[in-house]
Amino acid sequence: MLVCRTISEIRGFVRQARARSQTIGFVPTMGYFHEGHLTLMREAKKACDVVVVSIFVNPLQFGPQEDFNEYPRDFERDKRLAAEVGVDALFTPPVEEMYPAGFSTHVEVAGLTQCLCGLSRPGHFRGVTTVVAKLFNIVLPDRAYFGQKDAQQALVIKRMVRDLNMPLEIVTVPTVREPDGLAMSSRNVYLGPREREAARVLYRSLKLAERAVAGGEMDVARLLEIVRQEIASEPLAQIDYAEIRSLPDLEPLARLQGPGLLALAVRIGKTRLIDNTILNPGNSGGAGDAFNYV
Amino acid sequence: MLVCRTISEIRGFVRQARARSQTIGFVPTMGYFHEGHLTLMREAKKACDVVVVSIFVNPLQFGPQEDFNEYPRDFERDKRLAAEVGVDALFTPPVEEMYPAGFSTHVEVAGLTQCLCGLSRPGHFRGVTTVVAKLFNIVLPDRAYFGQKDAQQALVIKRMVRDLNMPLEIVTVPTVREPDGLAMSSRNVYLGPREREAARVLYRSLKLAERAVAGGEMDVARLLEIVRQEIASEPLAQIDYAEIRSLPDLEPLARLQGPGLLALAVRIGKTRLIDNTILNPGNSGGAGDAFNYV
Repeated sequence: MLVCRTISEIRGFVRQARARSQTIGFVPTMGYFHEGHLTLMREAKKACDVVVVSIFVNPLQFGPQEDFNEYPRDFERDKRLAAEVGVDALFTPPVEEMYPAGFSTHVEVAGLTQCLCGLSRPGHFRGVTTVVAKLFNIVLPDRAYFGQKDAQQALVIKRMVRDLNMPLEIVTVPTVREPDGLAMSSRNVYLGPREREAARVLYRSLKLAERAVAGGEMDVARLLEIVRQEIASEPLAQIDYAEIRSLPDLEPLARLQGPGLLALAVRIGKTRLIDNTILNPGNSGGAGDAFNYV
Repeated sequence: MLVCRTISEIRGFVRQARARSQTIGFVPTMGYFHEGHLTLMREAKKACDVVVVSIFVNPLQFGPQEDFNEYPRDFERDKRLAAEVGVDALFTPPVEEMYPAGFSTHVEVAGLTQCLCGLSRPGHFRGVTTVVAKLFNIVLPDRAYFGQKDAQQALVIKRMVRDLNMPLEIVTVPTVREPDGLAMSSRNVYLGPREREAARVLYRSLKLAERAVAGGEMDVARLLEIVRQEIASEPLAQIDYAEIRSLPDLEPLARLQGPGLLALAVRIGKTRLIDNTILNPGNSGGAGDAFNYV
């Protein structure tokens, strides 16, 4: 597995792969790999000749009060795990390589970014779309892989790719969960034992909403009441947002008519966790739908 | 010469050229070709195996009070001229092809765009960088060609390409002029006979400044005074801006120490014309310098 820190090195690697007519799969990450990341890499490996993974904790997508400095990092472990999955190249640029002096260009998706995490984290998605546009231009992948856990991010990136005619396909992969349902996240490491227990409330509340929809409840206010009550039952949990919005435009909904995204951001102590599910009144709501809509 | 209106057609053409390992030169235009456009195409033809030209009057870069609807168009003449120069493919998308319903992504360069035409035409450069990013992703050129007449545009696009790691080279080509010095522009067609005569004042004032620099004048305020006096001598002319700024960052200058950009925007009647020259105290200020700095 090639490990490189400069844009020119990874470009050289990609150029050689292209010259051999190999397809390139790309998984952009912030590192500190868990099963969710590894699943993205395995999916890329299945569908593409060559897999490139980037590890870059992107300062542009963190707010001034957020956890950029504390964000967990373990490069040696990440390297070992990526090699085990069969990743071909790991791109780990330092911040100066990505944002040289005088850097002043941004890519921004309007609309979709003005709700959910876009409200709680101003500038976050602008940071995400800017770095992802850069990484796409550096790696020139045929396919790039994103997790459904960051559903809004996946929708925003799909919109950017469509609007700017970027020549690649975005593949969204279902959320990978711990045995008790907690969505895998690098931030789960922040949770103390009592908090880890409390964090189960996110998944429980998503499941309650799914069950209510299966039972015929289509009223968004009533569905959200079920979710909020469940979360309120957990003293360590505080809701940042709990909303049901349309797919793929994330518009407010009063009633479920087609598939809707139930998205949560909940603080457990100081740790902000997100999770989501697609509520699909017409259908069992399995992973196939996630691929279609997110 | 292939003429196509859809993204999928021009992509098919480009894919075939790439499969033959041909290099691709690209000239994005708004059509109504003059010798300036044709020079860009000839330069592309010299350096690249295949030349693609786009004609797209981009609504996103016109302000609400500007001349989007009046902007001159003559597709049949453009087609003939491009074919004569040896252009291989002409891409002429309708507006809906470039901006489908729900379009909501923009590319924006800060700093460089907050002066000169960026102040006179709010949103103009955001429209330019957005459409150029799209066209680059569609055509995937090795080199793209821009005229020095739109010096700020060329600097902004170079910055975008550098900041977003777009995999191509930007080539800037010196301004092509009428025999009396007026810079070629599609908008020159708006000028009545008296206005056409008055429009010569832009070039005359640039030349006066160049001569003053050759004579040792380095003080920016005094150089601009020379320019403004000359323009004021022409009753039909009204200055929008006349400034000398640093290259490539377009920062204000008090004294010329290295090369500086003298940039003008002048209204002749209702027609707004721009022109510029590079004032280079160390040197004769020929075309070679334009290539280096703009």
